[in-house]
Amino acid sequence: MKKAVFYHAGCPVCIEAEQSVARAIGGGGYEVEYVHLGESRDRIAEAESAGVQSVPAIVMEGQPFHINFGASMSDVKG
Amino acid sequence: MKKAVFYHAGCPVCIEAEQSVARAIGGGGYEVEYVHLGESRDRIAEAESAGVQSVPAIVMEGQPFHINFGASMSDVKG
Repeated sequence: MKKAVFYHAGCPVCIEAEQSVARAIGGGGYEVEYVHLGESRDRIAEAESAGVQSVPAIVMEGQPFHINFGASMSDVKG
Repeated sequence: MKKAVFYHAGCPVCIEAEQSVARAIGGGGYEVEYVHLGESRDRIAEAESAGVQSVPAIVMEGQPFHINFGASMSDVKG
């Protein structure tokens, strides 16, 4: 199954995107992994190298798609 | 089936989002309508009232999700 990683930070915009976009993508042939970057800080570097600049974002087969705007990666890094 | 409308303007960023995000959402239980706002200019007002500020964007059950950034609505309106 194709892989997607949904990066978020638990923000309201993130939750909306998770409940609509990421969930539908999960039903549409992708295995979606959900990563909370505030909790899994060791995944921040991986998200950045995939091109993630803000959350929420979903990386589908290596390609980053930012969905609306919740927080920048510098906000996430604090 | 739940409805989604994918608004785009034929731009490279739009095409990437269409081929990955919109197509997966279409496989994930949504009936996705694809609207090219450059060609269907009579749909611009509808997109704006759904909250679309840039393309590509997908409106899922009335809620707008902007996916990366291709062009602003003012660019689309020209």
